[in-house]
Formats: sequence, structure tokens, C-alpha cells
Amino acid sequence: MLATDCGHTSGAHTAQLISTTHHPSNSRDAPRRAFSRFSRLTTAPPVHRLEHRTVKELQRMSSNDQLLERITSMVSQVLSEKGMMPGKPAGSGTACSLPHGMAAAGPANGTSSDPLVSAGAARVGHAAAGAAPPDSKCATMGQYIDHTLLKPTSTDADVIEICSQAREYSFASVCINPSYVPLAARELAGTNVKVCTVIGFPLGSTSTETKAFETRDCVAKGAHEIDMVINIGKLKAGDFQYVCDDIRAVVHASQGRLVKVIIETSMLTDDEKVSACILSKAAGASYVKTSTGFGGGGAEPEDVALMRRTVGEALGVKASGGIRDCSDADAMIAAGATRLGASASVAIVSGKKGTSSY
Amino acid sequence: MLATDCGHTSGAHTAQLISTTHHPSNSRDAPRRAFSRFSRLTTAPPVHRLEHRTVKELQRMSSNDQLLERITSMVSQVLSEKGMMPGKPAGSGTACSLPHGMAAAGPANGTSSDPLVSAGAARVGHAAAGAAPPDSKCATMGQYIDHTLLKPTSTDADVIEICSQAREYSFASVCINPSYVPLAARELAGTNVKVCTVIGFPLGSTSTETKAFETRDCVAKGAHEIDMVINIGKLKAGDFQYVCDDIRAVVHASQGRLVKVIIETSMLTDDEKVSACILSKAAGASYVKTSTGFGGGGAEPEDVALMRRTVGEALGVKASGGIRDCSDADAMIAAGATRLGASASVAIVSGKKGTSSY
Repeated sequence: MLATDCGHTSGAHTAQLISTTHHPSNSRDAPRRAFSRFSRLTTAPPVHRLEHRTVKELQRMSSNDQLLERITSMVSQVLSEKGMMPGKPAGSGTACSLPHGMAAAGPANGTSSDPLVSAGAARVGHAAAGAAPPDSKCATMGQYIDHTLLKPTSTDADVIEICSQAREYSFASVCINPSYVPLAARELAGTNVKVCTVIGFPLGSTSTETKAFETRDCVAKGAHEIDMVINIGKLKAGDFQYVCDDIRAVVHASQGRLVKVIIETSMLTDDEKVSACILSKAAGASYVKTSTGFGGGGAEPEDVALMRRTVGEALGVKASGGIRDCSDADAMIAAGATRLGASASVAIVSGKKGTSSY
Repeated sequence: MLATDCGHTSGAHTAQLISTTHHPSNSRDAPRRAFSRFSRLTTAPPVHRLEHRTVKELQRMSSNDQLLERITSMVSQVLSEKGMMPGKPAGSGTACSLPHGMAAAGPANGTSSDPLVSAGAARVGHAAAGAAPPDSKCATMGQYIDHTLLKPTSTDADVIEICSQAREYSFASVCINPSYVPLAARELAGTNVKVCTVIGFPLGSTSTETKAFETRDCVAKGAHEIDMVINIGKLKAGDFQYVCDDIRAVVHASQGRLVKVIIETSMLTDDEKVSACILSKAAGASYVKTSTGFGGGGAEPEDVALMRRTVGEALGVKASGGIRDCSDADAMIAAGATRLGASASVAIVSGKKGTSSY
């Protein structure tokens, strides 16, 4: 019933790859600690290709960014050997090939020639984004935004309204709960605005089978993008095999749609954030995303930067939760975000401040 | 794919049965207003059996309680004519037959001869519950309690711990997220403690198909009781046909397990609470339940009393959210609750005060 290519036979060993020991940490130290633990494991079978020489070499690297990307590459290589990678084995270390049939990660309705928009790859910098005058910069934010309405009290009329706004402002997508996918698909038919929905939302604690079913159901009803919530408890318990299988099942069920993995940063240690990102990449996701907006915390630039360093250039990073104005949005993009989740979308592109927390 | 016996062909008319006009209200007035609206509709086809004489008769009734029960009976009769009732048509007005194979609503491990426990029927009063000395009364609360752990950060170890507590204190059930159903089923095998899980939780905004699939999945893995969340947005929009279908699909998928419908009282007007209870009863649910614990509010005795008046004696009422000690629990039972959802369960039965909000 489930995808079985997340290496079921080697779960215990895979689980050792990344430790979740909880100790005081800051985001800059996390990659070095993760590497330190990883290096202790690289000589144990079956990780026989990662030789001690390579480990020594890595230990001399001074940049945490480089270190993280190498760790991700090495973990990906190991997972690939175990049949856990989605397509071809990781080659250069940054290539986690997107699901078949997917456009590269990035704002769905952006022009592919725009370097800010393409491939979710660009580490978009403040300087680049700051080239335009403030007002016009705000106006161009729309291409990054998943215009979001996930309140359980939302009605058909509310969904129709945000679809209208999304068409008017050319937002990347409208992000609504699954029961509104058919309505949003009708409202957005013939436009460039994508239909985004949420899976296992917001707790991430339903079964893998149900997440996969929910994904297939939403895709059949017109969803183009799938924002799924990771199983947080299993991540905290170090059951990486479960977490990988869980994400992979959704990726398979999405039939090539963009899958964003919500890791709920406010509930995780930095080590757990790094682990979640590596597992999302290994399972074939297209994006990692900070927050549900229901978990008691939203996006922080430091988390976005850590996530960007962890996934490298091949995946998108979506910042969501608490983004209320153009300045918030700009800070997230500067930190490495290539997509934004917001309900204050109209305020953001209009240079105003929204009142909703998501 | 879905159950189709919630009267699909008469949706528009059914939707008129209960208005959701939002106006300032209190819980004692709600039944009279609901009746007033209902009475305006009873002469319109196809509600031809509800004659004007009956309406006049009802208008003279002085008791809101009686009024509500008659309204429920009348609505049930209409729904039955449309093929929306689960089994036999409502007869006496209080008979909403439980799903086939179900024990009567009430604490799952209680003794059926205990009048406080049987059938979810007794309007349990303060005086009756107060017959025992305070300490022993607290100790007997366990039979009412669904010992609950729904935090997304919960681990296997946490679930094993609450299962152990549930066995020790003879709680009615352990209520955990779907991904932990197999573990809880193993931990509780051979005991009287039931496995309870949550469907479409906590937003209630996933599709009906997914709620039904999730229910079948959980039942197959060992769940005995199903706490589902109503589609709040559809309720607020007055799409009662959708809400009824949604609940009915879960009732069918549960294959006779106890289904509790969480109406999330903190997000509803009193009118909406009444509508939600009537629809739950019509769709064949066994219980109505106040809160998810994630919706910004918990159980209030006034809501429990309103829900009890609305569903009459045939269904159970579960109070959940914010029940932290024996006194809270006692107040809910006095108001008409026949089941309690709590994470402070051990504190409650020990005469102490819990710290968790759920």
C-alpha cells in the first residue's frame, strides 16, 4: 500500500545517521555538531564508501555552510545506496532531483527566466532584492506568496474572495484546506494561480496511509501543490525511517506535484530542524517549510537560513507564519526563502501591515 | 464512494431546516429561536406531515428542554423521510438508534448496571454524583475519562506511559493521534481500556472521503472509538447537507464503533451548537463532544447542558478541554456529560489539579 523504497530493511542503521541528542544549541553550531556525529558513523558498515580520509578532509572545512552541504550530500549518498532516494543517486551533492514532471521549485507563476524565481535555488540576497525601490519591491512580492486561508471557520464565500484576490495580485497560489480544493480549482481554472492544500494538517500525526490517501484525493480534485506536515513525534523519537517513509508516501501520491514539507520549527531543536530537512530532501520533497501557523510560532529568519543551508540549492524553502508586511517578507527572502505563506498577502504587496497571525 | 443516504436530492430544503442567522444569543433562548425558525418551515413541502396544529401545540410548550427534544424529534422525522436516518425512522422522538453492534453510549468500561454509566442517557445530576464522599467520588471518575494525549510532539514512550496509567486507573479509553493507534492497541490488548482516536483533527476541514478513509484505517489498526471533528466552515455557511454527509460517512466507515462528533463549541454560536447536535444525531453519531482542545477554548458547563438538552437522552455528551481537576469533572457530569476528555486524568482521580490545558 505504501511506497517501500525508503530502505525498510535498514531502518535502525539509518536512524543512527543523525542524532537528536538534545543539548543547548544555536543554529550556527548545529551543522558542526551534526557533522561530528555523522563522522563517527561513517566508518561503520554499511557506510563503507565514506572513508576516514574524507572525514578528516571535512573536519578541516571552515565554513558551516559548506559543511552542511557536504553532510547532506553524504547522507543522500548513503540513502541512495539503500534505495531511499527518489530518482538517480545524488551526484554532485546538491542534486536532489525533483519529482518527475515537476517544474523546478520556486514561485509557481513566476517567469522562469527570473533568477529570483527559478529553481528555488538562488540564495536570494538582501542586496539583490533591494535593487528596486521599496514600493515596487513590495508589489513584486506577490509571485512568492501562497495566499493562505486555513481557519476551520472559513466558508465558501471566504475561499471565493481569496481566489479573487489571488487572481488580481498574481499570487503564486491559494492555500486552502482540503475540503475547499474543488471550489478553489473551479475559481482558479484558466489562471496561473495554483491550488495549494495541506495534508495531515496541522498536527502531522495521522497515519502515513491517510496522508497518502488525502494527497491522492486532493490531487484528483485539482490540487497542484501539497504542503504536508512531518510526523513531529516520530522525528523527536529519532524514528527517521518512519519520517522518511511518511514523506515519501506523500511524494509518490502527489504524482509529480510540488510537495512542501512543514517541519514546524517552533517545536524543534536546531538539530531536529537539520534532521527534518535532510530527511525531506532524501524523501524527494521539493520544498521545506517552516510552520503551520497553528503551532505556537511562525517563521524566523534564522530558521529559514538554517533550512536553506541544510537543503542546499536544490530545494525551495517556504517561510510561513507571522509574515505580516513587506518588511517581514523581505527578511525571509533575504534569509533564503523562495516562497512565502501568508494571509496578509494583500497588505504585503500593498506596502501595508496585516493583522492576522497567518 | 461515500454513503449516499443523507438525502442528497433534498439538500437545499434540508439546509433550510435550521437557520444560522447570527445574532446575540444565550443558551436558554437558542432552542426557542431554533423552534421558531423550524416552525416557519414545517408547512412547506415536503414536510407535509408536520401540521400547523402541531406547531401551535409546540409553541405553547413552556419548557425549553421539552421544546428542544420535540424539535429534534421533528427534524429527525423529516430526515428519516428523506432517507437520512441511520436505521429505523425516529419513533418516540428520543430514539436515534445507535449504530449496529454498538454498546449504548457511556463510559466504555463502566458496568452497564450503573445508572450513571448506562446508555449515555441519564441526565446525571449533582445530587446523585454527590452521594459519595469527595475522595471516593474523585476516584470513581476514571470510568468517565478518555485519557488523552494529542500533542504532535508526543512519542512512543509518551503513549506507552499513558496506556500504563489508563490500565492502572481503569480509564474508559486512551485517546491518541492516529499514528499511535497500532501502539496503543498493542499496549491495551486484553484490558477493558478502549483505544480512542481522532479523525480530521483538529480543524475538521479535510475532505469527507479522507475522513472516511482515516476512520477505516484506524478501525483496521485497532481503534474502538472515533472522535471526529465536524466541518465547521460548512456548518457556519448553513450547508447542513454537507455536514450530515460528512458525519454519516464516518459513522459508516466506523463499522459500528462509537463515533463522537466534536462540534468545537468555542467557535460556534448557540444556534450553531444546536444545529451541529441535531445533525450529529440525524447522521447516526453516538456522542456529541465539546472541543478539540486546540480551538482556543474548552468545555463549559453551559455548553454541555445545551448539548444535552439538544440531543436528548439517546446520545452521549463528552466534555473536553480544560478539565483539570475533580471539581471541573464533577461540574461537567452535573451538566449532563457522560464522558470526559482530559490529559489531567491522573490528577482528577487523585483529587489533585493538573497543569495541562488538555
